[in-house]
Amino acid sequence: MAPPFFAIISGAGSGTGAALARRFAQSYAVVLLSRKPSSYEPIVADIRASGGTAIGITADASDPAAVDAAFARIDEEWPGSKLAAAVYNGGAGMARKPFLELQLSDLDISIETAARGLFYFAQKSLPLLLSAVDSAPHPPSLLVTGATASVRGSAFFSTFAAGKFAQRAITQSLAREFGPRGVHVALAVIDGSIDTPWGKERVVNNGVEDGKISPDAIAESYWHLHTQHRSAFTQELDIRPFVEKF
Amino acid sequence: MAPPFFAIISGAGSGTGAALARRFAQSYAVVLLSRKPSSYEPIVADIRASGGTAIGITADASDPAAVDAAFARIDEEWPGSKLAAAVYNGGAGMARKPFLELQLSDLDISIETAARGLFYFAQKSLPLLLSAVDSAPHPPSLLVTGATASVRGSAFFSTFAAGKFAQRAITQSLAREFGPRGVHVALAVIDGSIDTPWGKERVVNNGVEDGKISPDAIAESYWHLHTQHRSAFTQELDIRPFVEKF
Amino acid sequence: MAPPFFAIISGAGSGTGAALARRFAQSYAVVLLSRKPSSYEPIVADIRASGGTAIGITADASDPAAVDAAFARIDEEWPGSKLAAAVYNGGAGMARKPFLELQLSDLDISIETAARGLFYFAQKSLPLLLSAVDSAPHPPSLLVTGATASVRGSAFFSTFAAGKFAQRAITQSLAREFGPRGVHVALAVIDGSIDTPWGKERVVNNGVEDGKISPDAIAESYWHLHTQHRSAFTQELDIRPFVEKF
Amino acid sequence: MAPPFFAIISGAGSGTGAALARRFAQSYAVVLLSRKPSSYEPIVADIRASGGTAIGITADASDPAAVDAAFARIDEEWPGSKLAAAVYNGGAGMARKPFLELQLSDLDISIETAARGLFYFAQKSLPLLLSAVDSAPHPPSLLVTGATASVRGSAFFSTFAAGKFAQRAITQSLAREFGPRGVHVALAVIDGSIDTPWGKERVVNNGVEDGKISPDAIAESYWHLHTQHRSAFTQELDIRPFVEKF
Repeated sequence: MAPPFFAIISGAGSGTGAALARRFAQSYAVVLLSRKPSSYEPIVADIRASGGTAIGITADASDPAAVDAAFARIDEEWPGSKLAAAVYNGGAGMARKPFLELQLSDLDISIETAARGLFYFAQKSLPLLLSAVDSAPHPPSLLVTGATASVRGSAFFSTFAAGKFAQRAITQSLAREFGPRGVHVALAVIDGSIDTPWGKERVVNNGVEDGKISPDAIAESYWHLHTQHRSAFTQELDIRPFVEKF
Repeated sequence: MAPPFFAIISGAGSGTGAALARRFAQSYAVVLLSRKPSSYEPIVADIRASGGTAIGITADASDPAAVDAAFARIDEEWPGSKLAAAVYNGGAGMARKPFLELQLSDLDISIETAARGLFYFAQKSLPLLLSAVDSAPHPPSLLVTGATASVRGSAFFSTFAAGKFAQRAITQSLAREFGPRGVHVALAVIDGSIDTPWGKERVVNNGVEDGKISPDAIAESYWHLHTQHRSAFTQELDIRPFVEKF
Repeated sequence: MAPPFFAIISGAGSGTGAALARRFAQSYAVVLLSRKPSSYEPIVADIRASGGTAIGITADASDPAAVDAAFARIDEEWPGSKLAAAVYNGGAGMARKPFLELQLSDLDISIETAARGLFYFAQKSLPLLLSAVDSAPHPPSLLVTGATASVRGSAFFSTFAAGKFAQRAITQSLAREFGPRGVHVALAVIDGSIDTPWGKERVVNNGVEDGKISPDAIAESYWHLHTQHRSAFTQELDIRPFVEKF
Repeated sequence: MAPPFFAIISGAGSGTGAALARRFAQSYAVVLLSRKPSSYEPIVADIRASGGTAIGITADASDPAAVDAAFARIDEEWPGSKLAAAVYNGGAGMARKPFLELQLSDLDISIETAARGLFYFAQKSLPLLLSAVDSAPHPPSLLVTGATASVRGSAFFSTFAAGKFAQRAITQSLAREFGPRGVHVALAVIDGSIDTPWGKERVVNNGVEDGKISPDAIAESYWHLHTQHRSAFTQELDIRPFVEKF
C-alpha cells in the first residue's frame, strides 16, 4: 500500500544523505537516490529493519533522464503518495586547483552537479510539493545542501564556488517564488568537514573531538527546517563545528 | 532545592519572550527578566501551573545595575544551579523617522537596548555558560533576537538599524571567541511582524493567515539552536512568514 | 606599428561596452569584441576619428573557439603589445519567467553567457595580464560587469541569477588568486537600468531625469578601478541611479 | 572672500584625513577638523602653499558641541559658501581584547567615535549638502570611512565592530533616504593597514612593497565617489592591498 507521504533524498550515498534518509524515515516513507546501489542499499535495509519504509533508486541527480525515470518509478511504486520533502544533497564537483590549470569541463561538472541538477530536481519536485501543501503535516519543503563555497569564492576554488553560488541563487529565487505558495525552500550552508565513515583518517581542526560535523546533527537541522511553521520559515542557515574558523 | 540547570530570558514580557520562557521551561528552570512584574507574572504562573519552575525578576536588561542585581538574586534563589541558556531578547528602540527629525537620544536608546544591554548581559552570562560546558545536556547557549534591521539599514530606520547592526557585530564576535570554548552564540534575524496578543488589529501581509510570525514557532527555532550538537552550530538564521517579501 | 598596451572589451555592442571602449581608448589601443560587426563598427570609427586606435573582432565571448581566434588575431595585428585591461561585459541571458515555465536551456544560456564565457575569457586574458604586471602604467585589470542578480536571487529570475552568482564566484576567486600576483580583478554590480540609445522609450524610476544609468558614468568607474594603486584595490562596488530603490 | 564651495574633512589628523584634505583641496576650499591643532596645521600650511584654501578647526568630531561650534565658525569665515562634500573619517576606538576583559566604556568609546559622531556630523552636514544639490559641480557627498570591522565581527573585536557596524547601518539608511534627494552617501570599507608616516616600523603582509594602503590612493577613490554622476552612485566599496588576505 502506498504511504500517504514520502520524502526524497538525492545524494543518499554521502554521509549526510544517509543521515537525512534515516531522519526523515522516522516520519515518512523515503526514496534514496544515488548513483550506485551499493550506496543506498545498506541504508534502505537499515530503515526497513527499524520499521520504516524506504526504496533506493539508482540515478545521477544531475541527469534529467535519470531523474525523470526516478519520479516515474516512485509514482508506480507508491501511486497517490504525496511528496512532503525533497532534499537536494549534491555531491562532489570540488576541484581545488590554480585557475590556469582548470578546464572548462571542471566548471561544467560543478555547474551540472550543483546548479543544473538542482534546477531539474526542483522542476520535478515543486509541482508535487505544491500539491501537498493543503494536506501535508508540515509545509512541504525543498531543502538544499550548500557549502562554504556557496557564499565565498576562495582562491583555487573558482569552479566549485561557481556551481555553489549558482545553486544558492536558484534556491533564493525559488524561496521567493514558492514560499508565498506554501512551499518552504531553504539552503543549509555547511561550513566544515563532515564526519563520514570513509574520511575518519583525515585530520581537520587539529583532530579535536567534534571538529568534524556530525551527519546526524545536520539531519536534525534539516528536520527542524522541514517542521518550521509557515509563519516562521528560515531561508538560510549556516552549520559548522564549534572550533571552525570563520 | 536549586534546579540543576536554568535558562534566563530577557525581555520576557514580549510575545517572543513569553513563548521562549514557556519553551525552555519544558527542560529547565527559567528566569524571566522584564521591566514590569505585570509582564512576567502571568507567564511565571502559567509555567508553574504546568509543573515547571520559574521566577520573574523585575529588571531592565539594558541597565547594568539591574542586571547585576538579577544575577545576584538568581544565585541566592538557586545556589549552584548552572546556566544552560541565556536569551537576549531585546525590545523596542524602534523609531521610524526622517533622519533630520531624530535626536541623538533616539540613537542612544537604540544602542542601549540592542547593543549595550547585550554587551552587559553577555558579560554576566558567559562566565556562567562557560562553567556549564562540561555538565550541561546541550552546549550552553547565548541566543540573541535580531531583526530585519540587523542586516539592512532602511531609509528612516537609521537609529534602529544602528543598534541592531551593533548587536549583530557583538554576537558574531562572541560566536568566534566563545564557540571554540564550547558555548553556542547565535543570532536569529526576525524578518517580519510577530503575532502578539496586543497587536491583533495590526494588518500585515494583507491579513493573510500566518502572515505574522508565531512566537511559539520562534521559540521552537531557538530551542533547536540550543540543542544543536557542538559539531554543527548555526551562527545565524533568518525567520520570516512564508508570504513576507524579502 | 603595434601599440605598447591594449585593452579588450567584450560585449562591445552594448551601451556599456561602447562607453567602456571609448573611455579606455583615451589611454590604450582597444579591441572590441561583439557578435556582429554592426555593433562595433561605428564605435571603432568613432575612436579612430578621435585619434585613437581600435579594432573590432566578430566573436561571441561565450564561444571558446571564437575567443581563441580573437586572441590569435590580436597577436597578429599587434605583435608584442601588452594587455593592460580586459573587460568582461556580458550580455543577455535574462529570462524573467515563472520557474516551472523555464527550460534547462534557459539555465544553460545564462551560465554560458555569464560564467562559462568569463571563465574562458579569463583563462586567455590572465596570462597576458600577468606578463604586463611589471611594465603597465596601472595594475593590469580584469573587470567584470555584474548586475543586481549577482547578489540577489529574485523570484522569476532563477536562471539569470544562477549565471550572475556563478560569475561573481569566479570573479572573487580570481581576485583572491591573482591580486597577490599584481592583477586587479573586480566586479561592478550594476543595479538599475542602463540608458542605452535603443531603450529610450522604456520608462524606469517614473521617468525621472538620470533615473537610468549613464554608460559613460559606468565607464568612468571602470577606469577608476583600473587606475587604482595596487595598495588600494577595490574588489566589488555597486552602481545605481540616485533614485533607485535598494 | 568666501569660496563658492567647500569640503569638510573630519579626522584630518590621520594619514587618510590629510590625504583627503589635500585631494579635495584641488577643487574646493577645505575645512580640516581634528582634536589637536598640531594635526591639521602642517596640512593647512601645505594646502595654502600649493595655492589652495584651507582652515583647520580644533574639534572632536564625536562631540556635538564641538561640531556645532565648528559649523558656526565655518559660517562666519565663509558666509554663503556651499558644502560640496563632507567626509567622516573616524578615528580610533579599536580595542583588541578578550570580551571578558572589556568594559562598557570600551563599547561606549567605539559607538561614540564611529556611530554617534557620524550621526551628529551628518545632522549638521546634510541640510547644507541638500542646499547645494542644485548648484554644486558634482552631487554633494557624505563619505564615510569604514573598516574590515564594518562587515565582520571578529573574535576580540566586539566593541570596535559594534561601532563600525552601527556606522555602516547609519550610512546605508542615509544613502536610501538622501540619495533620491540628490546627495551621495557612501561607505569605503578600508580592509588593511594604512601606510601612515608614524607607522612605518609596523610590519604587515610580510613587509611587501605596497602591502599597506596608500592614503593618497584612498583619497583618489573618495574623489572618484564624489565625482560620480548621480545616475551611477556607488554606495559601498572595499579598499585593500593587493596582497591582503580576505
